[in-house]
Amino acid sequence: MKASERHIAEGILFTDQYQLTMAQLYFRMGMHEQPAQFDHFFRSYPDYGGHKAGYCINAGLAWLVDWMREVRFGPEEIELLRSQRGQAGQPLFADDFLQWLGREGTFEGLSLRAIPEGRVVHPDVPLTVVQGPLAMAQILESPLLNHLNYQSLIATKAARIRQAGRGQLLLEFGMRRGPAQGANAGARAALIGGADFSSNAGMSHVLGFSPKGTHAHSMVQAFMALGQGELGAFRAYAEVYPDDCLLLVDTMDTLDSGIPNAIKVFEELKRKGHEPLGIRLDSGDLAHLSVQAARMLSQAGFPKAQIVLSNQLDEFTLWQILSQIGQEAPQYGLEPDDVIERLVYGVGTRLITSEGCPALDGVYKLVGVQARGEWIPAIKVSETPAKVPNPGDKRAWRIYDRRGKATADLLGTAEEDPRRMKPLRLQHPSEQETYRILDPKEISHIEALFCDILRDGRQVYDFPSIEQIRELRRKDLDRLDTGVRRLLNPHLYHVSLTGRLWDLKQDLIRSAQEGAASE
Amino acid sequence: MKASERHIAEGILFTDQYQLTMAQLYFRMGMHEQPAQFDHFFRSYPDYGGHKAGYCINAGLAWLVDWMREVRFGPEEIELLRSQRGQAGQPLFADDFLQWLGREGTFEGLSLRAIPEGRVVHPDVPLTVVQGPLAMAQILESPLLNHLNYQSLIATKAARIRQAGRGQLLLEFGMRRGPAQGANAGARAALIGGADFSSNAGMSHVLGFSPKGTHAHSMVQAFMALGQGELGAFRAYAEVYPDDCLLLVDTMDTLDSGIPNAIKVFEELKRKGHEPLGIRLDSGDLAHLSVQAARMLSQAGFPKAQIVLSNQLDEFTLWQILSQIGQEAPQYGLEPDDVIERLVYGVGTRLITSEGCPALDGVYKLVGVQARGEWIPAIKVSETPAKVPNPGDKRAWRIYDRRGKATADLLGTAEEDPRRMKPLRLQHPSEQETYRILDPKEISHIEALFCDILRDGRQVYDFPSIEQIRELRRKDLDRLDTGVRRLLNPHLYHVSLTGRLWDLKQDLIRSAQEGAASE
Repeated sequence: MKASERHIAEGILFTDQYQLTMAQLYFRMGMHEQPAQFDHFFRSYPDYGGHKAGYCINAGLAWLVDWMREVRFGPEEIELLRSQRGQAGQPLFADDFLQWLGREGTFEGLSLRAIPEGRVVHPDVPLTVVQGPLAMAQILESPLLNHLNYQSLIATKAARIRQAGRGQLLLEFGMRRGPAQGANAGARAALIGGADFSSNAGMSHVLGFSPKGTHAHSMVQAFMALGQGELGAFRAYAEVYPDDCLLLVDTMDTLDSGIPNAIKVFEELKRKGHEPLGIRLDSGDLAHLSVQAARMLSQAGFPKAQIVLSNQLDEFTLWQILSQIGQEAPQYGLEPDDVIERLVYGVGTRLITSEGCPALDGVYKLVGVQARGEWIPAIKVSETPAKVPNPGDKRAWRIYDRRGKATADLLGTAEEDPRRMKPLRLQHPSEQETYRILDPKEISHIEALFCDILRDGRQVYDFPSIEQIRELRRKDLDRLDTGVRRLLNPHLYHVSLTGRLWDLKQDLIRSAQEGAASE
Repeated sequence: MKASERHIAEGILFTDQYQLTMAQLYFRMGMHEQPAQFDHFFRSYPDYGGHKAGYCINAGLAWLVDWMREVRFGPEEIELLRSQRGQAGQPLFADDFLQWLGREGTFEGLSLRAIPEGRVVHPDVPLTVVQGPLAMAQILESPLLNHLNYQSLIATKAARIRQAGRGQLLLEFGMRRGPAQGANAGARAALIGGADFSSNAGMSHVLGFSPKGTHAHSMVQAFMALGQGELGAFRAYAEVYPDDCLLLVDTMDTLDSGIPNAIKVFEELKRKGHEPLGIRLDSGDLAHLSVQAARMLSQAGFPKAQIVLSNQLDEFTLWQILSQIGQEAPQYGLEPDDVIERLVYGVGTRLITSEGCPALDGVYKLVGVQARGEWIPAIKVSETPAKVPNPGDKRAWRIYDRRGKATADLLGTAEEDPRRMKPLRLQHPSEQETYRILDPKEISHIEALFCDILRDGRQVYDFPSIEQIRELRRKDLDRLDTGVRRLLNPHLYHVSLTGRLWDLKQDLIRSAQEGAASE
């Protein structure tokens, strides 16, 4: 795409066509400036080929707000809309609507409440709540979901990979297989969710991180083609980067050529007073090769040299690799932990595409409209009770048990405060007979989850740094029960309703069904 | 991301860190301006959960070239690199290298040959060939793969979905679940590979398409909350869009409320002289509901009203839906084809994420370096013979049989012309004893696959429009054997080598192995 086209494709027209036709309909019906509320939430945890996650990590909010504050309907956008024709050849958008859009077509009238980035989040709990004029809140649907679904998906995958890797250094390597420019959002989300660093040079610099990397096979191949062999390539690398020497050892043969050549070069570096960093393994049986590499490097006097693993890694392959190291290392007289503590993971494709589950099912649902100064809750009936969104203006709370572990998220109406409800009744969101009663002494803390982000378009929130966001993620994961955090078959975390919200939901379902029947 | 950060994150630093450190190494060793050749190709067809595709559709080239021509190392990029420190706290990049990068750090010295977008392509055949100074050709690796892998992946998925949908109108609806800004590349690729239109407003306008859409549940909900019900919402829509009236009928109850209300409104429209467009089904048993909707709409006098289907569609769900319509339609006295011909598919998540296979394994491999004016082919040895890239400067040809169907792609050295080889021997790329001999009378046509795109940075190719690219796709798919085109268990298309290229490859493997052994 040319730069001259990008400002259109990435501006306020980065939305779905039907948002614009609905906005015109609201305008024509005089409803366009009627205050409305939309909730953004996801319905189910990512399901990685049959294995559902037990939690998600929230991400993407800061970039959404940056985008909302930068875009608007300018003359170019208005002209493009004016040019569009309907089936009968007539202009699809009328002049009066386009004039209104040119004048009022910004997100400056919207208020936004949200759960901060980095926090552990669960299905059906609103992550983002938008209030404001119906037409502009409607136009925001597609870009909001686009900004938030993908980053939360990738942050979640990164958290799982970090967990499987037992906290060893994790590098995001996904650009080459990432989704076009979306690779930048993917790198950011990976850094939020669990990656320590990224190989993405531009994005790392923008976010204040030092980009990381090793070298490619092509470097070794170039030296080989010019008659200098793998050893020549390694020597050149060591000469240019004596204090950052990390060598890729599988261009020819890992055990017979790569590691022995790397050790030769490391010995030369050591004699010159430099500490080599380590090696990278990018093919073959990574667990077996890790054990062999650890043994060979230690025997040669490099017991601290890192072993960077890459090649189709994710939480499941890491799990398998670490299990196999646990079995194989003792056969070679090594402590498994001594091998594992040297590992660094370079994770590309399967992180940036969320292998096994390439999309988060986030939705944006109308939950209320204001008429004559009063909020009227809205409902969408579904044949599956669990798919009926929770109506009206709500607040989200997190309940911590006596151990300080999160035990449930609770949704209530805006007027309710669960800190004053004793005992606290946690109602299942779609099954009337299922509820829990919590005695005050079982609760250590009840936390409000929402922060005000925008108030009538004005930013009232200081966006935290990536490092601060990661601190939230670490704190939340520590307060999650290990059963919920489990990578396979996690315990189901409870998301509950207050009794009053349950009653409101049931009343609305009933009257919607009666309304439909009598039409 | 703020606009002020975007030009860094999407500029020339949209690459992996190790490309920059390797470039400095080449600079230090005096190899940075040595001409090199890299081939871009993919190794295997996308594998959708155990079912491999039989072909891919090439896409992404025009945007890659736009990007290459726009980016360069400017003062800001140089300063960011200058600020980076190594492990020992020393600057990672030296002044002389940064000065060279500031002066020569563009892609203007590169030449590029490629198979055009829209063409059917196969594994191991170079899709893009880059020749030019080693350092800049190396830096291009990550952005090239990023631009081409994702668009080819999505174009391929779109072609498969179109095939499963028996050519009925296909709309791309993926923005909300798409990978951040990558959703724009996804929309373009979908339009190349098989989608007729997209709901993505900005991207459609940029590419000269009319964006398409219907309306959302939220519109019906808003009218319901304000006491006007589903019928009120439909009437409003028909009033504003009398000639483009397409109604979403599943907000309440599809058969008992949605379709009867839509029919009421369609009758009102008809009385005013307008032709309603149709309905959209977004939940439930889409095959069953399609048959019922077709029946109800036809009985009411709307035999041409479209039935738009959406909700987690891809090639496999469409296949199932069309099979089920084949079984159910006759039970209600309908011809299955009469139902199917009314269908339009809105495909979102599973298209834009390539459900089942979220990445294409495209790689970029050094195949030659020039020294003293002569090209020296480069090789990368692998324990898996099929993973050894084909060395040197090559040409790619497509052989058509007497029926005019493509029967094999053939790679040969730059000097060879298979049109002069009679009979033609097609050598398997990794198994010596496997080959085919084609008699001249079995061949109707031999086609050169590469086009020159850039010559020393100068564009020597007129990029075709999306419509022209689609024409290439349609033509190529028509010339593909139906066995290869099959969605499940396709026949394997042959990619072969000439005898001379086979010999070169074996010689290089042998001498690389001997070189490694003697080091």
